[in-house]
Amino acid sequence: MVLVSVIIGSVSDKELGEKAVSKLREFGVDYEVKILSAHRNPKELAEYLEKSSASIYIAIAGLSAALPGFIAAHTLKPVIGVPKDVKLGGLDSLLSIVQMPHGVPVACVGIDSIENAVLLAIEILSLADRGLEKRLKDYRLNMASSSSRHI
Amino acid sequence: MVLVSVIIGSVSDKELGEKAVSKLREFGVDYEVKILSAHRNPKELAEYLEKSSASIYIAIAGLSAALPGFIAAHTLKPVIGVPKDVKLGGLDSLLSIVQMPHGVPVACVGIDSIENAVLLAIEILSLADRGLEKRLKDYRLNMASSSSRHI
Amino acid sequence: MVLVSVIIGSVSDKELGEKAVSKLREFGVDYEVKILSAHRNPKELAEYLEKSSASIYIAIAGLSAALPGFIAAHTLKPVIGVPKDVKLGGLDSLLSIVQMPHGVPVACVGIDSIENAVLLAIEILSLADRGLEKRLKDYRLNMASSSSRHI
Amino acid sequence: MVLVSVIIGSVSDKELGEKAVSKLREFGVDYEVKILSAHRNPKELAEYLEKSSASIYIAIAGLSAALPGFIAAHTLKPVIGVPKDVKLGGLDSLLSIVQMPHGVPVACVGIDSIENAVLLAIEILSLADRGLEKRLKDYRLNMASSSSRHI
Amino acid sequence: MVLVSVIIGSVSDKELGEKAVSKLREFGVDYEVKILSAHRNPKELAEYLEKSSASIYIAIAGLSAALPGFIAAHTLKPVIGVPKDVKLGGLDSLLSIVQMPHGVPVACVGIDSIENAVLLAIEILSLADRGLEKRLKDYRLNMASSSSRHI
Amino acid sequence: MVLVSVIIGSVSDKELGEKAVSKLREFGVDYEVKILSAHRNPKELAEYLEKSSASIYIAIAGLSAALPGFIAAHTLKPVIGVPKDVKLGGLDSLLSIVQMPHGVPVACVGIDSIENAVLLAIEILSLADRGLEKRLKDYRLNMASSSSRHI
Amino acid sequence: MVLVSVIIGSVSDKELGEKAVSKLREFGVDYEVKILSAHRNPKELAEYLEKSSASIYIAIAGLSAALPGFIAAHTLKPVIGVPKDVKLGGLDSLLSIVQMPHGVPVACVGIDSIENAVLLAIEILSLADRGLEKRLKDYRLNMASSSSRHI
Amino acid sequence: MVLVSVIIGSVSDKELGEKAVSKLREFGVDYEVKILSAHRNPKELAEYLEKSSASIYIAIAGLSAALPGFIAAHTLKPVIGVPKDVKLGGLDSLLSIVQMPHGVPVACVGIDSIENAVLLAIEILSLADRGLEKRLKDYRLNMASSSSRHI
Repeated sequence: MVLVSVIIGSVSDKELGEKAVSKLREFGVDYEVKILSAHRNPKELAEYLEKSSASIYIAIAGLSAALPGFIAAHTLKPVIGVPKDVKLGGLDSLLSIVQMPHGVPVACVGIDSIENAVLLAIEILSLADRGLEKRLKDYRLNMASSSSRHI
Repeated sequence: MVLVSVIIGSVSDKELGEKAVSKLREFGVDYEVKILSAHRNPKELAEYLEKSSASIYIAIAGLSAALPGFIAAHTLKPVIGVPKDVKLGGLDSLLSIVQMPHGVPVACVGIDSIENAVLLAIEILSLADRGLEKRLKDYRLNMASSSSRHI
Repeated sequence: MVLVSVIIGSVSDKELGEKAVSKLREFGVDYEVKILSAHRNPKELAEYLEKSSASIYIAIAGLSAALPGFIAAHTLKPVIGVPKDVKLGGLDSLLSIVQMPHGVPVACVGIDSIENAVLLAIEILSLADRGLEKRLKDYRLNMASSSSRHI
Repeated sequence: MVLVSVIIGSVSDKELGEKAVSKLREFGVDYEVKILSAHRNPKELAEYLEKSSASIYIAIAGLSAALPGFIAAHTLKPVIGVPKDVKLGGLDSLLSIVQMPHGVPVACVGIDSIENAVLLAIEILSLADRGLEKRLKDYRLNMASSSSRHI
Repeated sequence: MVLVSVIIGSVSDKELGEKAVSKLREFGVDYEVKILSAHRNPKELAEYLEKSSASIYIAIAGLSAALPGFIAAHTLKPVIGVPKDVKLGGLDSLLSIVQMPHGVPVACVGIDSIENAVLLAIEILSLADRGLEKRLKDYRLNMASSSSRHI
Repeated sequence: MVLVSVIIGSVSDKELGEKAVSKLREFGVDYEVKILSAHRNPKELAEYLEKSSASIYIAIAGLSAALPGFIAAHTLKPVIGVPKDVKLGGLDSLLSIVQMPHGVPVACVGIDSIENAVLLAIEILSLADRGLEKRLKDYRLNMASSSSRHI
Repeated sequence: MVLVSVIIGSVSDKELGEKAVSKLREFGVDYEVKILSAHRNPKELAEYLEKSSASIYIAIAGLSAALPGFIAAHTLKPVIGVPKDVKLGGLDSLLSIVQMPHGVPVACVGIDSIENAVLLAIEILSLADRGLEKRLKDYRLNMASSSSRHI
Repeated sequence: MVLVSVIIGSVSDKELGEKAVSKLREFGVDYEVKILSAHRNPKELAEYLEKSSASIYIAIAGLSAALPGFIAAHTLKPVIGVPKDVKLGGLDSLLSIVQMPHGVPVACVGIDSIENAVLLAIEILSLADRGLEKRLKDYRLNMASSSSRHI
C-alpha cells in the first residue's frame, strides 16, 4: 500500500524527486512518484488525487509553486510542500507554498529541503508505527553523533 | 454574452470585485462575478471554467494566490491576475501570480490594481471592437487632461 | 490523553493561543497550552518536552522564532510552526521557522495562520481516527459552500 | 501585417528577443523586432510607436525597466512586459514593470519568461483567430502529455 | 529664470511638491512646479522638457516610478529622483528610480526624502553661486547645532 | 584643478575606480582617486576632505556603505554614491547609501553603476561648461544611435 | 566614571534613548546620553569620542544608520548598534549597521531592541563585575519565571 | 583558561571555524572550537554550556540559525553570532540571529563575517587586558595604513 505519494511539478525537478525516493527507501516506506504539474496537468492531477489512497503527499515545486496547495485543495490528508529555488533564491516558491489561505493548510519545509520533507512524513507515519519510530530514533541518534565533533 | 468573468478568491476581496464591476459597467462590457477559491472550491471552479464562455478572466487573490494560475491552467483565454495585499505588503501574492512556470501564462498587474486589470481587459477586447476602442481613447484623454496641472 | 500541545513563546502571543484552543475544541481534540520561551525558559521547556506525551506540537513564535525548531530538536513527533508578525511583516519569523537545517524538520504554516496549524494537526490525527476525519470533511464542505457565492 | 511587435531595451537582451521570435514563428504569427531603449532612444521609440500598427507589444527590459510602461503610455494596445534579471535576481525589473500607476496597465509575466509573454500574446490573438486557437490548443495538449510521467 | 523644475507624477503627490516649494523658497531659488505623469502625459511631458530651460529637475514618483528616468532620457541636465512610498514601503519606487541603465543617470535620494532632493539641488547650484553656498552653509550649521544635545 | 574626486572604500573596489578614471579621461575632466575607508581611515579621510577643493565627490562602497554619507557630512559639494554588490546583491549597500537622514543628501546611482556616477558628475559640471556639455551631447547621441537596431 | 555611553542620532529617537537610560539605572550602571548625528555632527561626534572614556558605546540610529559604524571607526571599545525602524520596517537600518566591512566590528541587536542592547552591555561589563553579574542573573531568573505560564 | 569558545553548527561551516581560530591565534587568545548543532545536538550543547567557563561565545550558523540564541539562552556571557550564507544570500540566517526577543541578547555581526566576530571578542576582552588592547591598536593602525592608498 502506498503510504507516501511524491509529486514533482516538472521533469527538471527530477533530482529532488530521486532524493526523496532514496530517503523513503532508507526507511522502508512504500511510496510512489508522479510528475504532474498543477498548471500543465490539472485534470490528470485532480483525477490522480481522487483515486490515490496515499496517507501523505510530498509536493516539490518552484516559481509560483501552486502544486502543494492544489493537492491540499483536493485531499484531507497532510500535504508537505518543498519550495524549489528556480528564481529569486526560491523566495517566490517559498511564499507561494507557505502563505496558504485559511482552511487549506500545507506543511512547508525549507527551500530545496526534500530530505526534511521525507523526515516529516516519517514522523507523521511513526505516530502509528512503532517500528518506523524506532528507525527514526536511530537515524536521529546517528545524525547527532556524527554532527558533534571537535576540530 | 459574458465577455469578462471576474473571479475573486474570498468574500473578503469583495470590495475589489465591486471596483471591477463599476469600471466594467463604465465601459459597457458584459461581465459576471464569481466568488470561488482555488483552494476551497477547486471542483466547482473547474466546472465553472469548463462551462464558461467568457473571453477574458480577471482573478483577484491574496497570499499564495493560486487563483489566476488555476484558471490559466483550465483555459486558453487570457487570464489577468490581481495580487491583493493581505500580508507582506502583497509581495507573496505578487510572486505567486507573476512567476508562472513555462507554458501557462498569467498577465499580472500591480498590487491591488483592479482598475488596471479591467483596463487591460478593455484593451484586449478593443482589438476587435472599434466602439470600445473609442471609449478607451476618450477615457485616456480625459485622464491625461485631469492629470496635468500646475500648482 | 493530550494529543496536541500548543506552546506559545510569549504572553503577548496569547491571543493566537486562544484561537488555537477554540479551534481544537471545535474538533473535540484533547490539548494543553503552555507559555514557554525557547530563549527565556530553555530548561523548563526541555523538561516539559521530555515528560510530554503529546502526539503533535504546535509552536507559535515571532522574531527569531527558535521555538518550533527547539521543540523539533527534542522530539520525534511532528512539530507545526506558526510564524507571528512582530517585525518586518513576519518575514524574520517565517524564515527562522521554515529554513530548518537537514535532519530536524518543522512543518511551517503561513504568517499568523494559527487556524491552519490546527487544521494540519487535525489532518495528521485523522490518519488514525475515522470520526475526526469525518468532522474534518464536514468542516471543509461547510467552508466550501460558504465560500462560493455570486455577487 | 505585423501583429506582434517585440521591443527589447538593449542589445544585451538580444537572446531573449530571439527566443520570442522562435516561438512566434512556431505559431506562424507575423512580428517585428526592434532594439529601442526607453532611456536611450525615447524619441525614436515614440515615433516608432506612433507609426506602428501592431496589435500587441512585447517589451523586454532589465533594471529600472521603464520600457513596457513607456510603450503602454503611447498606445491603447495590450503591452506585455518581461522583466529581465540583470541585478537583484530581477526583482528591480519585476517591480518596475508590474507596479504601474492607475490608468496605464502593463501585463507582466515572470522574470526572464519570454516564452510565456509570447503565449499570452497568442492567447489574445486567438480570441479572433480560430486557426491560431487550434494551434495553441495543440501546443498545450502536447505540453501536458510530455509533462506528466512516472519515474 | 527658472533654476529648478519640480515635477510630480500625480495630484496625490501634491504634498511632497509643496514641501519642495517651501524649501526652495527658503533658499530663494527660482522654481516652477508641474504635475505631469510619465505614463498618463508622456507627450505633454516631452514637450515641456523640450522647451524648459531649468538647470535641474526634481521628480517625485511612486510605484513603477518612471518619471525621473523619463526626464533624464530627454535632458542633459541633472535629474534628482524622489521615490514615494505608495506600496511595499516604497521599495518598488526606489528600485525603479535608482537602477537606471548605463548612459542615463538619475540622482536618487531616500524614500519620501523631498527635502534632501532640494538640498542636493542647492549643492549643485552652489557650485556657481557663492551667495547660495553661504546660505547652505548657514543652514547646515544651524541644523548641526540644533541636532546635538544632551538629555 | 581637480574637479572630481573619486574615493573608493577598499582596494578590492579598485576595478570600479579604474572604470571611473577611464570615463573621466574620456571627457577630459580633471580628477583624483583615493582609497580611503570611512571605517578604517576616518581621520585621514576627514583631513583629506578638509583640504580638498574638488567640486564633486564620487564614492564607491559595498556592505554598510557609509563612505558617501561620511563625505556628505564633511562637505557642501555634491556627493555621488555608488553601491557595490558584495553581499545580498548589493541591497545592503544601496540602502546604506540612499536612505540618508534629513539634511545631508547623497545622490545615489544604481548598483555597481560607476559609469552613470561619472555621467551624473559630467551633467553637473556641464551646467557651467559649454564645451563639456557639447561632449556630453555627442556622447548621448552616439550612444542612442548605437542602441537602436533591428534584428 | 561613565561606563556606558548611549548615543542617539536624532532627537526623534529620544524615546529609545530614555528606555536605555531606564534600563541602565535599573542595573546601577553609570552612563551618559548624547544626541549626536554621524551625518549632521561628525566633527563634534569625533571630538566627543576622542575625549570619552566610556567602556562601551550603544548607538541608536535609523535609515542609513552610519552612527554605530562611525563610532566603531573611532574607538577600540565594543560598540552596540540598535537599528531603528523609520522606513522599510527598519531593514535599511539593520543592514547599514550589521554589514560592517572587515576590521571594524559592530555588535548589532534587533530592530528597535534597545533593551537587549543594554543587556548586552551589562553582560560585557559583568565579565569584570561580580555584583553586576549577580543582578543580571536575578533579572534573567525573574524574567524566566514571569515568562512561563499555563493558560 | 579558555576565553573564547567558538561553536559551529555544522561540519560544513568548518572553514569559517578555521578562520576564527587563525585570527584568535594571531592575538594570542585562548580558545576552543566545538561542532555542535542547536537542532541536532541540543542536549550535548546544553551540557557543554553548563560546564564551559568561557568568557565569550562565538557561534556560526546558517539557515534558521538558532545556535547563537540557544547559547544566549543558556549563559550570561556575551554571545556573538555570525550568520552564514547558505540560502537567500544569508538573509534567513541574519534575521534568525539578530531579531532576538526581549531579554536574551545576541551580538550579531555581518554575513560570513567571522573575522569581525573575533575582533569584537578581542575588543570585549581588551576591556580588562592592556596587552591585548595594545595588540588590537596595532592591528587597527596596520590595517588603516594598508587601506589608504593612491591609485
